[in-house]
Amino acid sequence: MPNPTAAMLVIGDEILSGRTRDSNTHYLAGQLTERGIDLKEARVVSDDAAAIVAAVKALSAGYDHVFTSGGIGPTHDDITADCIAAAFDAHIDIRDDARALLQAHYERSGQELNAARLRMARIPDGAALIDNPVSTAPGFSIGNVHVMAGVPSVFKAMVASVLPTLTGGAPLLSRTMPLMKGEGDIAGPLGAFADEFPGLSVGSYPFQKDGIYGSNIVVRGSDATVLDRAMTVLEAKFSV
Amino acid sequence: MPNPTAAMLVIGDEILSGRTRDSNTHYLAGQLTERGIDLKEARVVSDDAAAIVAAVKALSAGYDHVFTSGGIGPTHDDITADCIAAAFDAHIDIRDDARALLQAHYERSGQELNAARLRMARIPDGAALIDNPVSTAPGFSIGNVHVMAGVPSVFKAMVASVLPTLTGGAPLLSRTMPLMKGEGDIAGPLGAFADEFPGLSVGSYPFQKDGIYGSNIVVRGSDATVLDRAMTVLEAKFSV
Repeated sequence: MPNPTAAMLVIGDEILSGRTRDSNTHYLAGQLTERGIDLKEARVVSDDAAAIVAAVKALSAGYDHVFTSGGIGPTHDDITADCIAAAFDAHIDIRDDARALLQAHYERSGQELNAARLRMARIPDGAALIDNPVSTAPGFSIGNVHVMAGVPSVFKAMVASVLPTLTGGAPLLSRTMPLMKGEGDIAGPLGAFADEFPGLSVGSYPFQKDGIYGSNIVVRGSDATVLDRAMTVLEAKFSV
Repeated sequence: MPNPTAAMLVIGDEILSGRTRDSNTHYLAGQLTERGIDLKEARVVSDDAAAIVAAVKALSAGYDHVFTSGGIGPTHDDITADCIAAAFDAHIDIRDDARALLQAHYERSGQELNAARLRMARIPDGAALIDNPVSTAPGFSIGNVHVMAGVPSVFKAMVASVLPTLTGGAPLLSRTMPLMKGEGDIAGPLGAFADEFPGLSVGSYPFQKDGIYGSNIVVRGSDATVLDRAMTVLEAKFSV
């Protein structure tokens, strides 16, 4: 059975303006790979309702899981929850379970649960809350979409809450062989090697070290035995 | 007149597996912002022909410019040039102008211009070459799509070659006001402020410093006078 597939959707003007560099996609990619869920696509869209709704619909239809980050805070530019509700044609309002979490949190910290903070309790009908051990305000899962915060520490905590609930596949294993040869010198035999192992993914990533061109050959697959056999073939091919 | 719009398309399994962290999108975002071209969307797709062709078509139709990175080297997994040709229904083969560049380069360095390296001279008919002062193998522009290398140093050099040929708009200016208040405490008046200046983009980005929650208020727009006036209003609103 093929592994489940996934897509990441990063929401936020600050990424597209170059102000902030997204780190959540890279983090999620590593976590999904370990779990045997294949991240097939990532997108970044701006804080624009039409763009968010269109991306959520397209990705939700195209992949087994969609993970979003960003836009679930208390300010006017946090429109993700409402856009997700619109994409699923679901009713959204302040929900009692989410409000109770926030109420307890702000009582403990002696801060006011004002109208702005209450916006963080807006959760679509039918969604399951995602636990946020860092700053309480929850994310949520609806359909196959998991809606999480943009702040990296909170995003990570929410990923840790969600991933154990998902069925993974065979984790993608990878082996790397560094070669002190330029890609142009190895491309021919490497292509033949890739043809020999159609079940594996074979990538070549050039690097430069002390002015010399080298290539990291990365072979990926879920069967450790096949992978080991492939690496033996690869070493024989490129041993001098 | 509104600014030209742009999208970024990152091509490569290594980004989606979490092996490599993309830095080209962040670099391009900053460069485009300075030039008054609005980056509206970014996507990452795997080394899969159907996925690349579909993304190129969608982004090329949706935005004024599309920038791609990755997949134009000499190895079997470098399929970007052929996918771009397919997306534009253009003929592609080894082109004399690109071959001449590579020939001169490899003669100088005493390396062989073999079949693999010649793949880097595969350029669609009608495309204009993009200069690569780092490692010679050119990128190319066809229609509104600019095809560049994934290696960050080469990507940057190619961006520097392409950007001066594009018509920019009014550069997006931004002003930041850091507040030592949590987002939940400022969200109400901040929303009212955003409504007061509909021509500006107002974002709020939470941070934590020495255990205290703060918010960076970022106001963006292309008119410096309006921006300065807005910041005066903002300061008055939040001065204690």
